[in-house]
Amino acid sequence: MSKPLILVTNDDGITAPGIRKLISIVNEIGDVIVVAPNSPQSGKGHAITINSTLSFEELNLDGPQRDFSCSGTPVDCVKMALDKILPRKPDLVVSGINHGANSSINVIYSGTMSAAVEAGVEGLQAIGFSLSDLKWDADFDQAEEFIKEIILKTLENPMPKGIVLNVNIPKLPKEDIKGIKVCKQANAKWEESFDERTNPHGTKYYWLTGYFNNMDESEDADETALANGYISIVPVKFDLTAYEYMNELNSVYQ
Amino acid sequence: MSKPLILVTNDDGITAPGIRKLISIVNEIGDVIVVAPNSPQSGKGHAITINSTLSFEELNLDGPQRDFSCSGTPVDCVKMALDKILPRKPDLVVSGINHGANSSINVIYSGTMSAAVEAGVEGLQAIGFSLSDLKWDADFDQAEEFIKEIILKTLENPMPKGIVLNVNIPKLPKEDIKGIKVCKQANAKWEESFDERTNPHGTKYYWLTGYFNNMDESEDADETALANGYISIVPVKFDLTAYEYMNELNSVYQ
Repeated sequence: MSKPLILVTNDDGITAPGIRKLISIVNEIGDVIVVAPNSPQSGKGHAITINSTLSFEELNLDGPQRDFSCSGTPVDCVKMALDKILPRKPDLVVSGINHGANSSINVIYSGTMSAAVEAGVEGLQAIGFSLSDLKWDADFDQAEEFIKEIILKTLENPMPKGIVLNVNIPKLPKEDIKGIKVCKQANAKWEESFDERTNPHGTKYYWLTGYFNNMDESEDADETALANGYISIVPVKFDLTAYEYMNELNSVYQ
Repeated sequence: MSKPLILVTNDDGITAPGIRKLISIVNEIGDVIVVAPNSPQSGKGHAITINSTLSFEELNLDGPQRDFSCSGTPVDCVKMALDKILPRKPDLVVSGINHGANSSINVIYSGTMSAAVEAGVEGLQAIGFSLSDLKWDADFDQAEEFIKEIILKTLENPMPKGIVLNVNIPKLPKEDIKGIKVCKQANAKWEESFDERTNPHGTKYYWLTGYFNNMDESEDADETALANGYISIVPVKFDLTAYEYMNELNSVYQ
């Protein structure tokens, strides 16, 4: 059997330790092509570049994989990879490992997960991986075996089209990780509080800050699993229709 | 009864004819505050600004509303409005009218809809409006009465928290619009094809282009409704969990 072709991307940029770790893991599994942003793209959500141009260049980095650095967003990287760089449709797209959690509502802000979702829109198997540690020198070794397990299981048990995985890893030593739990997206949100400053010219400007408000204590929510020491896996879809509300809405418009 | 407080935003920028039309409609319904991007933000999805600063300024434009021009993305505008500009939580957030359709999969790329979704995350009633006409001088008059009807019905029949509306209007003379239809998000996607060019320095660069591929002929899909001359309303949610796949995924990890 030929080796699977695996596309790797992320939102922290092609040189981030998280993506380099993910590349080292998938190098053991398949033929690997990396197409990742040439600069940090955190919080870019599902942004695409339509009013300016894009470019990419091949880098010469250590390892058997090929690395392409792309000027766009994570979603642009997936589109460029599929249309211009990959020799064929990949068997799997992995995104990450993100420096910082993308559990609960963060899935909609996350460039990491948006890249995985874009691959899903293209009908591909895709997984986003994130570690609950924002540090650049976070310890990505601890989760290596779990990540490999999840990738192998996904290759062996392909998901239906339209579903991708959102995997979050708690910041814990390997021996303290209790296992893997299939979860739902927790009901949580950011409570914004902009930090107001004044520039040297006397004009006010703002930094986005805030705190995370988890409103969901249910056993099967991803935040609960992470707090209890589990790796959470949420199956994510991009059909956003609230089917459960269609009947009621119909009654308003009839 | 006091007038409802209505926040208006968009992704085409605060001077776009689409948002000015929407403002004129809601000025007849409530007290209106506009917080919209100071530049075009199409395709920005749910992007937020975390690695640079934001600013806003009040403009002095015609009409009873107050207008604030913001340096960020549509989602930034909603966050800034709620934290720094509005005197209280608004009764309704409307986004648009977008120059171009945001039906089917476009909901995930759309800054217009991401602004509405962000308002939904904040627990607010929210509606995104889009017209299937990309032109700057598109005719927004034709849908005026329908938009007013949808806004009034939403104020009278509040949606459960976690649901917002994606309203798309076909490019048709008013008399040819057949009515309003509650729909699901059509299964459709963009088939990418990057336009490759060479810059004066000999380096290749790319423009994102492609064609729209509707793979969904079901009667209740938004693309079908639009093609048949109806205004489509899709109830949209931001809990992306694929609940229907959780059992099967559980069997893989047990």
